[in-house]
Amino acid sequence: MRLLDTRVKVLFEPYGRKVEARIPGTILEVAQYSGIGVRSECGGKQVCGKCRVIVKDQVGLNGATDKEKLILSEDEIVHGYRLACDARLTSGADKITVMVPVESRFRPRRFTEWGKERRVKPEPTLRKYPVRVAEPSLDDNRSDVERLLDALHKEQDLVGLAVDLQAVRELPNILRSSDLVTVVVRDESEVISVEAGVTSEKLFGLAVDVGTSKITCNLVDLNNGETIISRSMENPQIVYGEDVISRIAFSQEKAENRLMLQESVIGGVNTLIWQLCRETSLSPENVYEVVLVGNTAMHHLLLGLEPRYLARAPFTPVSKSPVDVKARDLGVKINPCGHVLFLPIIDGFVGADAVADILSAGIYRPGGPILLLDIGTNTEVILRREDRVICCSCASGPAFEGVHIEHGMKAVDGAIEKIRIDKETYEVEFEALGDDKPVGLCGSAIIDAVAQLLQSGVISGLGKFNANIKTPRLRKAGNSKEFVIAWGEEAGIDGDLTISERDINEVLLAKAAIYSASAVLMGKLNIGKEDLKKVLIAGAFGSQVDKRNAKTIGLIPDVDDGRIRFLGNSALTGARMALVSRRMRRLAEGIPAKVEYVELATSPDFKKEFTNALWLPNRNPVLFPAAEKSVKKRG
Amino acid sequence: MRLLDTRVKVLFEPYGRKVEARIPGTILEVAQYSGIGVRSECGGKQVCGKCRVIVKDQVGLNGATDKEKLILSEDEIVHGYRLACDARLTSGADKITVMVPVESRFRPRRFTEWGKERRVKPEPTLRKYPVRVAEPSLDDNRSDVERLLDALHKEQDLVGLAVDLQAVRELPNILRSSDLVTVVVRDESEVISVEAGVTSEKLFGLAVDVGTSKITCNLVDLNNGETIISRSMENPQIVYGEDVISRIAFSQEKAENRLMLQESVIGGVNTLIWQLCRETSLSPENVYEVVLVGNTAMHHLLLGLEPRYLARAPFTPVSKSPVDVKARDLGVKINPCGHVLFLPIIDGFVGADAVADILSAGIYRPGGPILLLDIGTNTEVILRREDRVICCSCASGPAFEGVHIEHGMKAVDGAIEKIRIDKETYEVEFEALGDDKPVGLCGSAIIDAVAQLLQSGVISGLGKFNANIKTPRLRKAGNSKEFVIAWGEEAGIDGDLTISERDINEVLLAKAAIYSASAVLMGKLNIGKEDLKKVLIAGAFGSQVDKRNAKTIGLIPDVDDGRIRFLGNSALTGARMALVSRRMRRLAEGIPAKVEYVELATSPDFKKEFTNALWLPNRNPVLFPAAEKSVKKRG
Repeated sequence: MRLLDTRVKVLFEPYGRKVEARIPGTILEVAQYSGIGVRSECGGKQVCGKCRVIVKDQVGLNGATDKEKLILSEDEIVHGYRLACDARLTSGADKITVMVPVESRFRPRRFTEWGKERRVKPEPTLRKYPVRVAEPSLDDNRSDVERLLDALHKEQDLVGLAVDLQAVRELPNILRSSDLVTVVVRDESEVISVEAGVTSEKLFGLAVDVGTSKITCNLVDLNNGETIISRSMENPQIVYGEDVISRIAFSQEKAENRLMLQESVIGGVNTLIWQLCRETSLSPENVYEVVLVGNTAMHHLLLGLEPRYLARAPFTPVSKSPVDVKARDLGVKINPCGHVLFLPIIDGFVGADAVADILSAGIYRPGGPILLLDIGTNTEVILRREDRVICCSCASGPAFEGVHIEHGMKAVDGAIEKIRIDKETYEVEFEALGDDKPVGLCGSAIIDAVAQLLQSGVISGLGKFNANIKTPRLRKAGNSKEFVIAWGEEAGIDGDLTISERDINEVLLAKAAIYSASAVLMGKLNIGKEDLKKVLIAGAFGSQVDKRNAKTIGLIPDVDDGRIRFLGNSALTGARMALVSRRMRRLAEGIPAKVEYVELATSPDFKKEFTNALWLPNRNPVLFPAAEKSVKKRG
Repeated sequence: MRLLDTRVKVLFEPYGRKVEARIPGTILEVAQYSGIGVRSECGGKQVCGKCRVIVKDQVGLNGATDKEKLILSEDEIVHGYRLACDARLTSGADKITVMVPVESRFRPRRFTEWGKERRVKPEPTLRKYPVRVAEPSLDDNRSDVERLLDALHKEQDLVGLAVDLQAVRELPNILRSSDLVTVVVRDESEVISVEAGVTSEKLFGLAVDVGTSKITCNLVDLNNGETIISRSMENPQIVYGEDVISRIAFSQEKAENRLMLQESVIGGVNTLIWQLCRETSLSPENVYEVVLVGNTAMHHLLLGLEPRYLARAPFTPVSKSPVDVKARDLGVKINPCGHVLFLPIIDGFVGADAVADILSAGIYRPGGPILLLDIGTNTEVILRREDRVICCSCASGPAFEGVHIEHGMKAVDGAIEKIRIDKETYEVEFEALGDDKPVGLCGSAIIDAVAQLLQSGVISGLGKFNANIKTPRLRKAGNSKEFVIAWGEEAGIDGDLTISERDINEVLLAKAAIYSASAVLMGKLNIGKEDLKKVLIAGAFGSQVDKRNAKTIGLIPDVDDGRIRFLGNSALTGARMALVSRRMRRLAEGIPAKVEYVELATSPDFKKEFTNALWLPNRNPVLFPAAEKSVKKRG
């Protein structure tokens, strides 16, 4: 008798990676399990259509499902396209070959922006104290810990210290191996490590921004507050869904999923720690503290808090307070007696990243008026005027990250990032990231495209293509129209790189959300655009953007270029400031109490502002005089 | 080709237990690994000779080693006796049958004494508070934790509470499943659990005495301070050596051994928790606190502290302070947010058990003079006079636990526990534990035997047999003599149950250590036996002992029977008091600072007192007038 064969070999191309897979899994599950980067923005729910793969010989797979037939074209199905999330392994084949086309692949992101180095006087909660501990003798029957604490008292004037049990398990051997020992004390209140010899120079900490799509971190020397090295990676949770809503949904499917999400993101942080330490030849034992920031969903998922109610009204978080736990309690692989601090959050939609934004932009001080936008899938908008700070969050959607845009993509190699369109000829110049032919448009290019199409009169103030424009680049596509940014021969994909009316509509929705949120806050504090001293734009997205084009499409208020500043990853900067300075940390911890959250849904002006902002640049022309002037009127 | 067979089946009789064992392990390792109770007092070092087993067909074993030939008689070797620790599996047999003779078996101990219930006003650090938490709404954007803390403030007047992260991971679901929730608060300062509904009646704690040979515990209802159920078990560390010195030596052999010792004893505590909860149908989730006591070595081994320097001068412990950690940090399987508290220790040889003795005997209050002996392998001696408490520890050896006595054994089924010897006929009456024929003598019987042999003139004041006594019970044995307590036909072993001069000498050494330690302390505070208001005897050992016989051999000072009290396991009683009452806990935590440790080795009188105490009852007859009078003088 032969057992039924429940396994099949799957070959992923172009990687040449062979994987033994269990029947009846889906291709997406096999890919995710094996670490092969296949995009999935809906978390495997047959919605986003981003996980297309090509399987020429489909023996050993189920037939195309109804859901696939909805999303894939007939032509695609004929050519072997499948949604990896709905293509299920069946018995009948020994081997299946899966081609992951370029548009379905994860790519390493280009992380040029780490958050500007804002110098802060180092004043860390951690300090190292070298001390000489008395030897034990028959006349001195004090314990090792008592003699250690006495030395800290006499030599360093420290009293009333608690001692982490784990930190003293090896104390007898350390004391007897070395005359001098170095003691790591946190907050002048707790001994968290005792080390043989003088190790004062090895005092490190980590600032981490846990974003929905990427984790970014700085390894910091706590003796001088300087960043030694910065690294980042995709948030590994991404295999469970690209946005927070998919991940929260995933966490509800099975009891163990919440733990999987937690372990996944902590695993990511640990990978970064390992990488940072390897590159600098430091030991993770000498990293004693991690300060984390992130949005509220990341906060809940990383800390293992039930995230369910973040996704339904009234969007109540479990806890807003700063969370300070032992690294070992979370499984974060630094010194096990070290601490992990998650900065406080403001609300269900405004997280510790906004607190860090406020800290790093200095908005905790009275002043302004200053408007800060931290642009991402959710955009946080913060407005300071004198002694008030108000904030809100809007679902701006992922259009600026290239999602829901037919040829959209993240700012990684292969992405077009800058576009210029000639107002007369409609010819297009572009700049792309990396050395290969471009395969898509990232956020800044999308903004450029919409702004330049508007200025050259190719689209109207409502984002519709002007039928009178004569250029081969503007053409019909189904019931609608599209504009060719790059012809097939210039691009690294089959066919042309285009932008469609549907894409432009997505951009309008996104920018309308962001602009109207800003407008509601400005209205609330009676601030006109002319009053704004600064408009600060944070987010990895922000730094690539052309200021004038952003104003042309009405994304940000029309203020002088000189008042607009890109902060890069200012959330990470804020985390680093709270890591390095206990004064900054105290400031950060006090921020949520000083910030008023504005619920847009119940703000009377929001609907009007939003509708106005659906126009390019805005239905109310007074708001964007420069943009209005630059637009070429036709027809 | 056939792989060499590296496994062999071992059948352990009389258990009928078949085990697959790996070559080349020892029989002792196989037995320990499989949970078959084979005694080993030296920890498998071919010293104690307690692990004798019988293997009739020794194909598949190494030959008897030189060490075995030293310990086993020629006759035994002929009959297949081996030391399990030196009998090593070799290839050549499919199956080996090992007989574990009765004297080599572990037996369940008889645990009649749990420590007297000393009633203490319940005043636990833990309390349960039922509260009604406001529902979240769009108008109330406070987090779940904020609303919970607000309810605790408004309804229960609790402010400034910290919250254990683990305790609130499920909070959103709990709040939304029940109108009322019950919050467990520790020390009016920390939320450690939030439970749906009203669970106020389920508030339990555990008091545990971690002894070198057994772990004893009380499950306590913290609402009324009453013990619900008590259980105990062998300390599983016993497979790594019977006494603390063997275990400390074992911990030094390999890096992982210390962790093995820690996991072993914590595993034991967890087994007891599981058993207690199963028998009472309670959930370990509703056990929120464990108070532990134990000697200094148990303290270090359970907490995972390096124990090495406890075994060498100047015997310095790592830490003496009370240790309070999260149960999850130690892997203790109660509510993971619950706490484990190890009471403070006094010195390298005087542990938290002595602190608990002092607490439960009330010796923390000025008064006395009171002498307290906690008799075990190490005996703690504590003396209170007015406002001074002094203490010491002496290595009394395990003679009273039946170790180093040829037919000695613990107080388990099969042990003779009481002996009477007729002064004229020398006939012996005995009482044994359990229903079967006796197989050995436990501590109380050993004391009886020595006292009665002395009173009937069979032995002299130096513990030597009197050659003039005519009875078949007194006979030669090698170069020495022995006295038959039970003839072969009365006993459950091959041959007679005897007591030898060598055994009596062991008793003399033990009692001399204990008495001289008491005498040194009494001398130090100028106390004569007539001054002693109370002599308190603790230890499971203590409760079985005949007071008069104990005085006859000079083990305890000669005071009126009415002043002598047996406390049973007073260390466990003390642990329970500290569990139930925060006032008692504070008292316990203050005890080490009030107790003066006396180092016997450097006390000038110790040697003289010890030498005097090597006589029966004592070289100084003034000390034991009653005993002197009761002794029948002969020859």
